Amino acid sequence: MTQTRIVEVRAGVLKKNDELARGLRTRFESAGAFVVNLVSSPGAGKTQLLERTLGELAAAGHRCAALVGDLETDNDARRLARSGVPVQQINTHGRCHLEADVIGEFVGAWDLANLDYLFIENVGNLVCPASYDLGEALRVALLSVTEGEDKPQKYPTMFNSADVALITKIDLAEACEFDRSAAHGAIHEVRPGMTILEVSARRGTGMSAWLDLLVARRDAWRNRS
Amino acid sequence: MTQTRIVEVRAGVLKKNDELARGLRTRFESAGAFVVNLVSSPGAGKTQLLERTLGELAAAGHRCAALVGDLETDNDARRLARSGVPVQQINTHGRCHLEADVIGEFVGAWDLANLDYLFIENVGNLVCPASYDLGEALRVALLSVTEGEDKPQKYPTMFNSADVALITKIDLAEACEFDRSAAHGAIHEVRPGMTILEVSARRGTGMSAWLDLLVARRDAWRNRS
Repeated sequence: MTQTRIVEVRAGVLKKNDELARGLRTRFESAGAFVVNLVSSPGAGKTQLLERTLGELAAAGHRCAALVGDLETDNDARRLARSGVPVQQINTHGRCHLEADVIGEFVGAWDLANLDYLFIENVGNLVCPASYDLGEALRVALLSVTEGEDKPQKYPTMFNSADVALITKIDLAEACEFDRSAAHGAIHEVRPGMTILEVSARRGTGMSAWLDLLVARRDAWRNRS
Repeated sequence: MTQTRIVEVRAGVLKKNDELARGLRTRFESAGAFVVNLVSSPGAGKTQLLERTLGELAAAGHRCAALVGDLETDNDARRLARSGVPVQQINTHGRCHLEADVIGEFVGAWDLANLDYLFIENVGNLVCPASYDLGEALRVALLSVTEGEDKPQKYPTMFNSADVALITKIDLAEACEFDRSAAHGAIHEVRPGMTILEVSARRGTGMSAWLDLLVARRDAWRNRS
């Protein structure tokens, strides 16, 4: 087993995924469904953010749905279902990321034309999900204040492939001695000019700016030439 | 590219790694170097725990060294070097875990017979490092109180392949509304009877029990029949 052989197989998998993702993107665009792919470490707070986001967008009249990926358990789908929007759990059974083929299978259960927003909560992993396009319109990388300010430098591909960085659990910043300026600096070193928002889904801090961003990005996407 | 082909290539990589890991384990045993592989999510506190562990073991007269894996940067090696023990940084440049071959290369720089303990800080990832034996005598899975109590159920292979679970950042338990009983229950559901310790490397809480465990496990390992 040579390293060259492994790299070739991996390149083949990525190429196939890219082709499937292009097809998905066309489907999402035709249907008018704005797809957001949430990526982060395990435990950065994707589910808590999404639970609150789905509830608030639905309350404002937006039609939402969510796909949530985990190796095992349907804990997250059950949490998200409390928001009242349609949710499906994807169990990857050992695979460390979601791929376009499985997204294609699961969205087949829904009429995409009835959705304004489709959120995909990826498997918690700061490495592999970066390489797999899911046909999303917006990729959001979460970084919690408890993780260490230099994570963007250690995992540059994830932050470089994302459109927006969301610093989560901001209510714990003081308890963690979080260095805000170092974290923003690390993100901008990897991706100069990247939009950074700070939120606490538990306390509600920063949620309105996050929701405004989602609405503005969807509007811009719908009016693209 | 079929799924079968990918699985075959992956099985080949794992088999080669297992063979190399067996060779490493023999080298470590002949030299009397007790090797500890630390695995966790990014940001669970491996480096902070290790910095304090190296300092306290060295102060007690134990001869230690550390290898630290990250995709990019030598931030962690620089932090760990403050403890005064020999440290080498391994940059995986995109690879989401350490493998036995790279460990073999890096330990070649040291006389293993002069080491009581060799710590390996794996890449932050709760999935892939679980499948790669590094020839270690002890695998320790860290779970921080900020991550969510159900992580062992979501990432069962990692906790099932570890020997000891370490709940970290215990000083943040109250601020995170950490449910201790749920976390212990989740670990024991995946791995009944697993030893669980709780520590705060920042505050020093639980460090003596952790250091006692390391010494006891090394003694038992040296006296194995």
